[in-house]
Amino acid sequence: MEFAPYTDLNTSSRILLGPGPSMVSPRVLRAMATPLLGHLDPEFLKIMEEEQKLLRQVFQTHNELTLAIPGTGSAGMEAALCNFIEPGDAVLLCVMGFFGERLCEIAKRYQAQVDRLDCPWGEVFDPAQIEATLKGKAYKLVALVHAETSTGALQPGIPEIAAAAHRNGALLVLDTVTSLGGIPVEIDNWGVDVAYSGAQKSLSCPPGLAPLTVSERGREVIKNRQTPVANWYLDLNGLEKYWGQPHAYHHTAPISLHYALREGLRMVIEEGLEARFARHRANAELFWEGLDSIDLPPLVPLSYRLATLTTPQIPPGVDDLSVRSRLLDEYNIEIAGGFGPLRGKVWRVGLMGYSSRKENITLLLAALESILH
Amino acid sequence: MEFAPYTDLNTSSRILLGPGPSMVSPRVLRAMATPLLGHLDPEFLKIMEEEQKLLRQVFQTHNELTLAIPGTGSAGMEAALCNFIEPGDAVLLCVMGFFGERLCEIAKRYQAQVDRLDCPWGEVFDPAQIEATLKGKAYKLVALVHAETSTGALQPGIPEIAAAAHRNGALLVLDTVTSLGGIPVEIDNWGVDVAYSGAQKSLSCPPGLAPLTVSERGREVIKNRQTPVANWYLDLNGLEKYWGQPHAYHHTAPISLHYALREGLRMVIEEGLEARFARHRANAELFWEGLDSIDLPPLVPLSYRLATLTTPQIPPGVDDLSVRSRLLDEYNIEIAGGFGPLRGKVWRVGLMGYSSRKENITLLLAALESILH
Repeated sequence: MEFAPYTDLNTSSRILLGPGPSMVSPRVLRAMATPLLGHLDPEFLKIMEEEQKLLRQVFQTHNELTLAIPGTGSAGMEAALCNFIEPGDAVLLCVMGFFGERLCEIAKRYQAQVDRLDCPWGEVFDPAQIEATLKGKAYKLVALVHAETSTGALQPGIPEIAAAAHRNGALLVLDTVTSLGGIPVEIDNWGVDVAYSGAQKSLSCPPGLAPLTVSERGREVIKNRQTPVANWYLDLNGLEKYWGQPHAYHHTAPISLHYALREGLRMVIEEGLEARFARHRANAELFWEGLDSIDLPPLVPLSYRLATLTTPQIPPGVDDLSVRSRLLDEYNIEIAGGFGPLRGKVWRVGLMGYSSRKENITLLLAALESILH
Repeated sequence: MEFAPYTDLNTSSRILLGPGPSMVSPRVLRAMATPLLGHLDPEFLKIMEEEQKLLRQVFQTHNELTLAIPGTGSAGMEAALCNFIEPGDAVLLCVMGFFGERLCEIAKRYQAQVDRLDCPWGEVFDPAQIEATLKGKAYKLVALVHAETSTGALQPGIPEIAAAAHRNGALLVLDTVTSLGGIPVEIDNWGVDVAYSGAQKSLSCPPGLAPLTVSERGREVIKNRQTPVANWYLDLNGLEKYWGQPHAYHHTAPISLHYALREGLRMVIEEGLEARFARHRANAELFWEGLDSIDLPPLVPLSYRLATLTTPQIPPGVDDLSVRSRLLDEYNIEIAGGFGPLRGKVWRVGLMGYSSRKENITLLLAALESILH
């Protein structure tokens, strides 16, 4: 048997400015430390019901099937695919970065016939191009990422893409992991059928729950399945019967994370969605101005640049990893590096939820300037 | 948009004596409220490494592939099946209660050819019967539940069953959800190939992580798969590359739950496994004596009765639900009812981890006596 570490938990006070998790406010941390209720306690079922109502407000939807998947954002992505895909179904997946790639990887596990549309990392699709492709084949669904965490690009034209999907008999599945709670996401107005997110980005809660919402059109597709969902834990039939009547046991909910998500969602609604989006935008602009002044221009043009996640370009001759190590070791600041074709070429800086504060931006810019110049 | 609930979280102080979650000690709750580290922060990777070492001690194993699945106990069950099953594989599933049924339900989703062996709920298998069945067919694996939470029965003879499985070329998959940390579980000595558990039972941590361990024999089976694991989130290939070198991003770990699990495991090791098992046993015996004295004899004979979960029989004419409601409303005590054939016939009382304390037993017995007599 190996030696057991008996030391107390002793963590550094990190300033989390990567792509997530973002910082969690003391209010949410306190809520999480509340002693447990049972997962079928009437008091806990009420908490879940309140959480559902709050999630509907944040998603801007009336969708009855709105809940939090008991896993992290990628479990949300898998749930958003596996409940709708049956073996042999044709799906169109739009790939503009790492998380588009992950959509493909997951869809293949469920034996979908995957067609992919690619655009260079850091760019976005012309909705007309997606519509043209949708016309060519009977797709069950088209999936894409609203806010690509790997590139910092924000896909425009979601309402047009949703309309095109519906005209061609397909569902629109939208990844809102890095957008929900930080920039506008309007599920009903836009006509999105399935959307998922993560608790640990702009909602600023601890990771471990993935908000998800499904339109009536999406529910019909689930109802008309010929085969059982090929994943037990993420099967929305079982999850829905636990969240709603008859509140039948499915899994033991992660009680403490629900306490935290409810509290984090309350904070979102207290701040107000519009005010929250404005704060994220104003802080992002402050950061972008600062980046220009220290010669670290963002990769993504202003017209489709994400407010919640920025990708400053690493100057030639500067070593990605050593700068990030110094930020962490000397300043307790976490930012992330690039993935795939952007590895070593950009940093990824998240300004989400409780992390999106002026003092963090001023500190990061000063630290970067001190390290680089 | 519906009305948002703005009230503070205001929960009753429950005494959790159901089948889980069990109560969480203040130390673990405090650890959970620690501000977050990033999921790739070197300090967090160290915490996961310590967690792995502690899990190996608790599982009594040297298995390298030992980690916590980022989901609740049922996700652990699904991981323990989907990583080993390929379409068409023959599996033998031993069903002695609700969680044996769940094994079947999950295995079918992965297109296994399922043979089941049944025994009446509340009873256990004769290992010789399992061996005889194993001889009849080339099974990829045999799975069974060590401690059936739905009945309170403890399956004896795990080493014999493991040996029989190996003699016949099968893996042994063991559900230790309600045993790990409360009664002896000796993965290496017994020859178990795959075992999973839940954080929220005898380990007394909040739900949301499922400890899992895989033997070298089990890893070989994963390595020799012809098809990818039909579940992305629970694919041990991806999980292992995140927990170990190269620490490649797979999902955003539920940081706060890992803080909690590490602290809860430390408490297990500080108490000592033998002392902890003795405490669970002594408290269970105290409870059983008390049940006899108020005419609520346990369903399961002493020889294979579980120390962590007892199923007292509901006397004729007593209404299950109204007694449980009074326990909750008047005494803040949670116990659970029976499932399936045991619905209305037994209660399920868990004495696990931090819930296994004399004061809880004395209170529950007094409350039951007052309600019933």
